[in-house]
Amino acid sequence: MSIGFKIESSDGAARVAKVTTHHGNYMTPAFMPVGTAATVKGMTPEALSRCGVQVLLANTYHLMLRPGAGRVARLGGVGKMMSWPGPVLTDSGGYQVMSLAKLRNLSEEGVDFQSHIDGDRYMLSPEKSVSLQHDLNSTITMVLDECTPFPASENEAATSMRLSMRWAKRCKQKYSTRPGYGIFGIVQGGMYPDLRAESVESLLEVNFDGYAIGGLAVGEGAQLMRDITAHTVSLLPTHKPRYLMGVGRPVDLVEAAAAGCDMFDCVLPTRSGRNGQCFTSRGVVNIRNSRHKDDPRSLDETCSCPTCLGYSRAYLHHLIQAKEMLGGVLLTWHNLFHYQTVMADIRSAIGSGQMQKFREDFARCQLQGDIDPPED
Amino acid sequence: MSIGFKIESSDGAARVAKVTTHHGNYMTPAFMPVGTAATVKGMTPEALSRCGVQVLLANTYHLMLRPGAGRVARLGGVGKMMSWPGPVLTDSGGYQVMSLAKLRNLSEEGVDFQSHIDGDRYMLSPEKSVSLQHDLNSTITMVLDECTPFPASENEAATSMRLSMRWAKRCKQKYSTRPGYGIFGIVQGGMYPDLRAESVESLLEVNFDGYAIGGLAVGEGAQLMRDITAHTVSLLPTHKPRYLMGVGRPVDLVEAAAAGCDMFDCVLPTRSGRNGQCFTSRGVVNIRNSRHKDDPRSLDETCSCPTCLGYSRAYLHHLIQAKEMLGGVLLTWHNLFHYQTVMADIRSAIGSGQMQKFREDFARCQLQGDIDPPED
Repeated sequence: MSIGFKIESSDGAARVAKVTTHHGNYMTPAFMPVGTAATVKGMTPEALSRCGVQVLLANTYHLMLRPGAGRVARLGGVGKMMSWPGPVLTDSGGYQVMSLAKLRNLSEEGVDFQSHIDGDRYMLSPEKSVSLQHDLNSTITMVLDECTPFPASENEAATSMRLSMRWAKRCKQKYSTRPGYGIFGIVQGGMYPDLRAESVESLLEVNFDGYAIGGLAVGEGAQLMRDITAHTVSLLPTHKPRYLMGVGRPVDLVEAAAAGCDMFDCVLPTRSGRNGQCFTSRGVVNIRNSRHKDDPRSLDETCSCPTCLGYSRAYLHHLIQAKEMLGGVLLTWHNLFHYQTVMADIRSAIGSGQMQKFREDFARCQLQGDIDPPED
Repeated sequence: MSIGFKIESSDGAARVAKVTTHHGNYMTPAFMPVGTAATVKGMTPEALSRCGVQVLLANTYHLMLRPGAGRVARLGGVGKMMSWPGPVLTDSGGYQVMSLAKLRNLSEEGVDFQSHIDGDRYMLSPEKSVSLQHDLNSTITMVLDECTPFPASENEAATSMRLSMRWAKRCKQKYSTRPGYGIFGIVQGGMYPDLRAESVESLLEVNFDGYAIGGLAVGEGAQLMRDITAHTVSLLPTHKPRYLMGVGRPVDLVEAAAAGCDMFDCVLPTRSGRNGQCFTSRGVVNIRNSRHKDDPRSLDETCSCPTCLGYSRAYLHHLIQAKEMLGGVLLTWHNLFHYQTVMADIRSAIGSGQMQKFREDFARCQLQGDIDPPED
């Protein structure tokens, strides 16, 4: 029943595991690209596979508004609709309601809101969120929660977290167990270790197929994020997947994997790619910078993605300057390939017991900075 | 020397030929997708190859302004820069100067204009156009001409055509002959058969590697376009390629190939694709139409492109409605694949002496109209 999670090797708190699902398997630590409206912007599913992507995230909020969860259901679910053969995790919709919708009204029942697309009113309750994700045929369903804002007082964080815990229980009750499908709870509690502990305890009582760490990467800074992550991970069971939501930069993924997190998602590689920001083995490169305009070299000489194998910095600079679609496509491709390569390197380092050395090497490479510009 | 043109079979005026160039070969009748700024919008060169594309067109006007012809030259030419291994034909820049640039001033010398990007002033003369195309390392250079507007009086058309003929001669004088490269003259003369004949005579005196028919598809209507095309073709030598510029719809290509034209270019499949207009075996389908929103069927059941094999009309409708990049990518892919399939079918019909039957069957299929919408 549910999804499978088999640890294959570990190194300190970090582990490599195989997740088995109704829609195929994936290895963790895993990075999930964000396919908001049932498409990772500009990428075909074939291109995603060629990047090494094994599991995707899609946004329930966007899909419930357009094309509508019922329509997605009639087309066989989000994976079938978009021609992605692998597993798909959907978020609950709660985060986007709070960040995108208008006239939100949060109550014990759920969130009443107005669509940012056509102004129609909707109600997103825990039961409704689970039902929508069922319609989407999501491999992994996420519980509806409130992402506690930062900063929040201990009282505010406690009130918000306890509401999320009551919602989590209602989500689990509504959820239909199916072989190869799963539902994850989400730990909240802001930056308060005791509240994080209380939240974990509540979720363990309900019993989920995996546990996500929410409410981070909200402006608290890298050190506090790492502390709260490590603290929360230490309270979670080892035999279930741990998903650090909305994180982050490659170096954050390395650190979180070292702390024992298994799954990640972030818009950074895709959104940045469309804006000309590239993640490389030597840190971030902004291809818009005029230093690249005559540079015949590849973006990252250590990378074997189609973008680095086929195109010069000068051409990529030209495409982004000319606002050509292909610029966004090629840089998204590179960034996702880079992220997947980092994840594969993490798995390999854990497998060979070299995670500590890998962390040090990775951080040093990232700080090197870009190669010198060509001479005039 | 120059490019090779070997006729392999013919059927009436129509012929199948192999063009050999420094950058590889292509079979005619051939359709060249438009890669304005050294990119066919949203398509990788690999995707173009998978559509069956063998030769591309790029726009000298756009490339001279951005990234600049000198920069393209330092990157090895337009093909090398964009990672396209095959032949590239460049236009002269004249057409875009007249349609896009500001403050144009046409004289015997050439066209003085202001860039639509940054307002800088440029001079495009016949010599400058050839020199720019040399910098771009264009496989086939086009002469600078003035595209005679429609309608034009016989006097206006004659004056304009004779200027173009003087320019054509200057272009040929400036052009450096290189093995596997070629330069094409362009027949003008508006809708006046005698002026077309005079124009052909002028160009034949100069002697070009191929002859283009310009000044059509400017609003004169399908019948007049066909008449002027057939008339002009009848005056051109059989042993050199004939290129009908800026044409057109699939049915126009079939008719023009039947009349003896060998090469074509048009923005229609790419620009329309981004707007949701799809060319199919049963005519044009507008995927924005709400009749497609629940349709699980492919765009064209007779098409084997990745879009038709992998995605439903409902999903394509969703992508275009949600303004997702992938919508433009997938529909461009389909349209280019469809165009290349039509060209392959034309070559096959000519090869088997079935061109007349093919024209009739093709026209009948195009008039069928789209399949019925699914029942509610």
